[in-house]
Amino acid sequence: MRGRTVYDRFSRTFRDHPSLSRLLVVFTVSGGGLVAYSEANSFSGVSSINPLEDGSQKKRVVVLGTGWAGTSFLKNLKDPSYDVQVISPRNYFAFTPLLPSVTCGTVEARSIVEPIRNIVRKKNVDIHYWEAECFKIDAENKKVYCRSNADTNMSGKEEFAVDYDYLVIAMGARPNTFNTPGVEENCLFLKEVEDAQKIRRTVIDCFERASLPNLTDDEKQKILQFVVVGGGPTGVEFAAELHDFVSEDLVKLYPKVKDLVKITLLEAGEHILNMFDKRITTFAEEKFQREGMDLKMGAMVVKVSDKEISTKEMKSGKISSMPYGMVVWSTGIGTRPVILDFMKQIGQANRRVLATDEWLRVEGKNDIYALGDCATINQRKVMEDISAIFTKADKDNSGTLTVKEFQEALDDICERYPQVRLYLKNNQMLSLVDLLKDSKGDVAKESVELNIEEFKSALSKVDSQMKNLPATAQVAAQQGAYLANCFNRMEECERNPEGPLRYRGEGRHRFRPFRHFGQFAPLGGEQTAAQLPGDWVSIGHSSQWLWYSVYASKLVSWRTRALVVSDWMRRYIFGRDSSQI
Amino acid sequence: MRGRTVYDRFSRTFRDHPSLSRLLVVFTVSGGGLVAYSEANSFSGVSSINPLEDGSQKKRVVVLGTGWAGTSFLKNLKDPSYDVQVISPRNYFAFTPLLPSVTCGTVEARSIVEPIRNIVRKKNVDIHYWEAECFKIDAENKKVYCRSNADTNMSGKEEFAVDYDYLVIAMGARPNTFNTPGVEENCLFLKEVEDAQKIRRTVIDCFERASLPNLTDDEKQKILQFVVVGGGPTGVEFAAELHDFVSEDLVKLYPKVKDLVKITLLEAGEHILNMFDKRITTFAEEKFQREGMDLKMGAMVVKVSDKEISTKEMKSGKISSMPYGMVVWSTGIGTRPVILDFMKQIGQANRRVLATDEWLRVEGKNDIYALGDCATINQRKVMEDISAIFTKADKDNSGTLTVKEFQEALDDICERYPQVRLYLKNNQMLSLVDLLKDSKGDVAKESVELNIEEFKSALSKVDSQMKNLPATAQVAAQQGAYLANCFNRMEECERNPEGPLRYRGEGRHRFRPFRHFGQFAPLGGEQTAAQLPGDWVSIGHSSQWLWYSVYASKLVSWRTRALVVSDWMRRYIFGRDSSQI
Repeated sequence: MRGRTVYDRFSRTFRDHPSLSRLLVVFTVSGGGLVAYSEANSFSGVSSINPLEDGSQKKRVVVLGTGWAGTSFLKNLKDPSYDVQVISPRNYFAFTPLLPSVTCGTVEARSIVEPIRNIVRKKNVDIHYWEAECFKIDAENKKVYCRSNADTNMSGKEEFAVDYDYLVIAMGARPNTFNTPGVEENCLFLKEVEDAQKIRRTVIDCFERASLPNLTDDEKQKILQFVVVGGGPTGVEFAAELHDFVSEDLVKLYPKVKDLVKITLLEAGEHILNMFDKRITTFAEEKFQREGMDLKMGAMVVKVSDKEISTKEMKSGKISSMPYGMVVWSTGIGTRPVILDFMKQIGQANRRVLATDEWLRVEGKNDIYALGDCATINQRKVMEDISAIFTKADKDNSGTLTVKEFQEALDDICERYPQVRLYLKNNQMLSLVDLLKDSKGDVAKESVELNIEEFKSALSKVDSQMKNLPATAQVAAQQGAYLANCFNRMEECERNPEGPLRYRGEGRHRFRPFRHFGQFAPLGGEQTAAQLPGDWVSIGHSSQWLWYSVYASKLVSWRTRALVVSDWMRRYIFGRDSSQI
Repeated sequence: MRGRTVYDRFSRTFRDHPSLSRLLVVFTVSGGGLVAYSEANSFSGVSSINPLEDGSQKKRVVVLGTGWAGTSFLKNLKDPSYDVQVISPRNYFAFTPLLPSVTCGTVEARSIVEPIRNIVRKKNVDIHYWEAECFKIDAENKKVYCRSNADTNMSGKEEFAVDYDYLVIAMGARPNTFNTPGVEENCLFLKEVEDAQKIRRTVIDCFERASLPNLTDDEKQKILQFVVVGGGPTGVEFAAELHDFVSEDLVKLYPKVKDLVKITLLEAGEHILNMFDKRITTFAEEKFQREGMDLKMGAMVVKVSDKEISTKEMKSGKISSMPYGMVVWSTGIGTRPVILDFMKQIGQANRRVLATDEWLRVEGKNDIYALGDCATINQRKVMEDISAIFTKADKDNSGTLTVKEFQEALDDICERYPQVRLYLKNNQMLSLVDLLKDSKGDVAKESVELNIEEFKSALSKVDSQMKNLPATAQVAAQQGAYLANCFNRMEECERNPEGPLRYRGEGRHRFRPFRHFGQFAPLGGEQTAAQLPGDWVSIGHSSQWLWYSVYASKLVSWRTRALVVSDWMRRYIFGRDSSQI
């Protein structure tokens, strides 16, 4: 139809300029609902749902969550032999890296969301979406219990249960308050689209309140004290956006109070953005200070009352308080109650985060997968399997390993234990021989043979290379795509396993383990630091950076891209809007 | 700056196409906050504000409200000799005719609002804005009492008082529930931008709930029963928008439930749009029925519970109930509590609506003006002043009026009592002589003389032409502009009064009385009905009509116009968004 033609023209324009896609930046913690997942005590008598009314033998896949991981899984799932049910309290996917921009109206909330029904209806796979929250996973009976989050007119039919053959848990995390008193009640968060909209209204509200006629300057100053807790990418990006919003737009509308505004960034560690290259940290800190932002490092928040926020200086232990108008809390992520409950069921009660293996399967449950922010991959240590590895590599059962035998086994080892390759690379060892040097000294190369102790010693340091993947949108999206790909080739790979050698057991693993590709830390590499533009923290340029990330993400539709660009055009022409909407 | 240049280019484009402005349509009830104006019992000890710290002798004008009337007043006020304070709980002006479009995402909420601070800061008049609600008008002491609607951190400084020399009341109305039980609690309204956003979320929510797996078709049908109460322009426009949203966008996303959707329009009268030309009414009714909408005339709502809406059939008196998913209440406007309280103070307790004279002054209070939906003009009847008119017209004190004397007096009479001109026009009387025919018969024209009884008889029917002005955005905007103009020329007209002759008292009135110009009923005239496009109730064309109204309104900034057009482009390309945002 006519719409289609215009759409095509749009697409073509962007396709003709592939240079836009050269850079990648991802600058956020991925989705997942903040909605309180309440503990489930009573869920007996809930009717169970089996949508396979046609009596077909399709495997039932239940996906919990429509964030980066869940949506990416759905987008990449192509095998029509599954019956997929998606359950999430959010009926849309949100492009979370732009949330800080939404807080100040640089981009509109609506421009960064895409209805999940739009995403799934174009596929040839049977995908049903239910807008509900999963409040209980019953791994024993292969059921999930859900509750509609609509509050009225359901006549007691709010709860229902769904059976699964495979369960994909991708429900993200919740903000981590570290149980600091008062945070839940008095702080704003920045994980959901609604959070960003609430922050926006609150900022304007603070300016309006501070403008009221019967206040002293001191009282005005208190109301215009904005506090950001957490010096990670989200907190820093938000602080930068807020600063720009204030200095570019609000000062014109509220000239009488503009000098009373103060933005304070609190970070418990010694530096902001400490996961990135040092140059970026220094650059950002200097830029913030130059622009009059108040940076407080080594300050841990111990309490937030309705009027004051109290911090403890890490070095001296001194506690001080300051009044505030708005506090935005952005200090990382925690595990949702429903996941904690599930962990108890499957014997992971003593862990902080749900653990999966390298194939994203929840440990001990072959039919449950977990990905994105709600889980971490518990990577296998070489040292745990060292004897089995030695035995398999020692093909002639001589009790020693020749360099040749080791060399032949190395590819399999590296595939199963990626830390080995990382270790070689990070220590600039070009070959196996370099590795052996450390344990055997500088000897004649080809004739060396290793016994098990020497083999252990050669590999003893590699496990130190293991690192949890960061909780980013990029990782979640890659995990979703990886898992969908596994599902697409489930039968084929059952017959022809493509994974690494099984060191404990026979044959090969069905799939290759999940590998994160791309930058480990988004702005962290040498190369990225070199490419750092002069002014990236200021909005003009940071939006450019964000645009690259939008472009780079395959998850984002052309619709979202076009809307975001048109938002930027609107802002460029008319400025940001300061209405309380 | 650069922004300015782009802006200029925009403006020029539009200015070059004046043809766009040919038509005018206004299709709404104007602004005013729905925020509950609570009764004020305790306001003693509130600090009083006088911002004239420089000791100047400027007259203090306080404006309550930032809707059509208030904003229009502010935009047109040019005399720098006033010190203006604007008080409103909404820090923006909203282009309310587009509210029905916001309910379904045809236009974005943000596109139809303009920050009031943006509007006032470009002027050379001192205008201060306070975001607060006026909860008490104290006409005795010339003070208004206000309360900030922010809920925290104000340390008891939420309330303050403002002194005025002139008070301009333009705070609009609230939805009229006719005290029907359950309406306040269970229905949605359509007066504020937030209302429209809430309706939008509720519609999507109903579709999501109806899609849940454990419901019977009967239960789904109940959830997808949308009810619109009130067949006025707002209700009809909303029903049409909802129908288009459902049939153009939602059926694709919710294919399983599309046949269960039902939209019912309830109207207590015998026809919808009964203030308009009959052809429009018939056209709209037929179109609605053709498209499967459920029209119920003569059905008065008597009760709304959380699950059911009960109606009484006007003819038979039979009461029936039906379940619903969403009810939108749009049956006209009522007076706010703060105005009712004020009416008691000034002796208007027995009236339903605040009354002003033709100069928009509140009756009995020379320093208080009221305009827009919160007041009606109590037009002077000719019959009340008939003796005084006769005496003034009878210049030679002969006790009779010659045709010449009458003719000379007629212009003054028509200016003071516009119903006279309207009567002549509506009865197609080309001259005074035609008027006299009725009372004196067909006699020799110039020689006739009238005594007071004959004069009374000639004018006896003219007062029947008096009609209250409709509560539309157009009227409110014209009143605001009129009043600003009076304020601009206050001193000049004090010296040289330009108003009509005072029949009771000496001299002339200072200003001409307010006159509403333009279409009395927006789509009501012969001409408009002739211009009616084939399909105006469907969104494609109605948005075009609305666009004309946007263009025609001088209140709307180029920013708003450009945003609305770009929203339409977005919708044209990508469809409406169905995310719950």
